[in-house]
Amino acid sequence: MENVPFPAAGTQRELERGDALAPRFDADGLICAVAAHAGSGEVLMVAWMNAEALRLTLETGYAHYFSRSRQALWKKGETSGQLQQVQELRVDCDQDAVVLKVIPQGDGGACHVGFRSCFYRVWEDGRLVERP
Amino acid sequence: MENVPFPAAGTQRELERGDALAPRFDADGLICAVAAHAGSGEVLMVAWMNAEALRLTLETGYAHYFSRSRQALWKKGETSGQLQQVQELRVDCDQDAVVLKVIPQGDGGACHVGFRSCFYRVWEDGRLVERP
Repeated sequence: MENVPFPAAGTQRELERGDALAPRFDADGLICAVAAHAGSGEVLMVAWMNAEALRLTLETGYAHYFSRSRQALWKKGETSGQLQQVQELRVDCDQDAVVLKVIPQGDGGACHVGFRSCFYRVWEDGRLVERP
Repeated sequence: MENVPFPAAGTQRELERGDALAPRFDADGLICAVAAHAGSGEVLMVAWMNAEALRLTLETGYAHYFSRSRQALWKKGETSGQLQQVQELRVDCDQDAVVLKVIPQGDGGACHVGFRSCFYRVWEDGRLVERP
C-alpha cells in the first residue's frame, strides 16, 4: 500500500462499524498510539503516528512512530535495539487512536529511562512513587 | 489541591525521576489519558485531560476527561452511567501521558458504540474486523 493514502470515512457508521481503516489524523496529522505488551497486556508507552508511520507499521510489522519533539519519523528501537514486533493492531471507535500489541525486542524494555514500561511511576498520597 | 496548579518540572531528571506530578500539557493544554481495566488490564479507551480534568480525577477518584470535539470538561459516565472508578494513576517518563487503572461502573462498558472497550476492531488481512 505504499503511497496509497488512507481513505476518509464517509459516515459515522462507516467510521465506527466499517471495515476500512480510515484514521482521523488531527490538525498536526497525528493519531495517538498506545503500545501494550502482547503477553502481559501491560501498557508500555504512548506515542504518535502520522500516516507514514502507520503505513510502515502495517507494512513491516514493526512499530514506527512520529516524534513530535524531533518532528521526524522514528522506527522504535532503531538505535536502542528495543524494536517492537507488532502482533496485533486495533483501532478505536472514532479512529483517532490505535493500540498495538507488541513483543519488545532487544533487552525487552520500551522506555529510554531504563524501565520496562514508561509508566513506572504511580500517584500515591500526593506524590509519584516509582513502582516499575 | 483545588485551584492549585500543577508544578513545572525544572530539570529533565525531575521530570523523569522526580516525585512531583508535573504534567507537560501540550499547546492545547492537554495530556493523553489511557484507561485500562484494573482487573484484566485491557485498554478500554484513549481520551484527553486538561489540568482541571486531571485535578478532578485525583480529587474525586473518578475519571474526568476533556472532550476535544465539544471543548468541554467531561465526567466519564455522567450520562451513560459508565463511571470509571480509578484504582491507580500512572504517569509516563516525560509526563505527557497517564494510564488510569479503572473499574467501569454501570453496565461495565466504556464505549458509546456499545462495546466493552473502544478498541473492538482488529486490523486483519487489509481490513478491520470486529473482535470485541
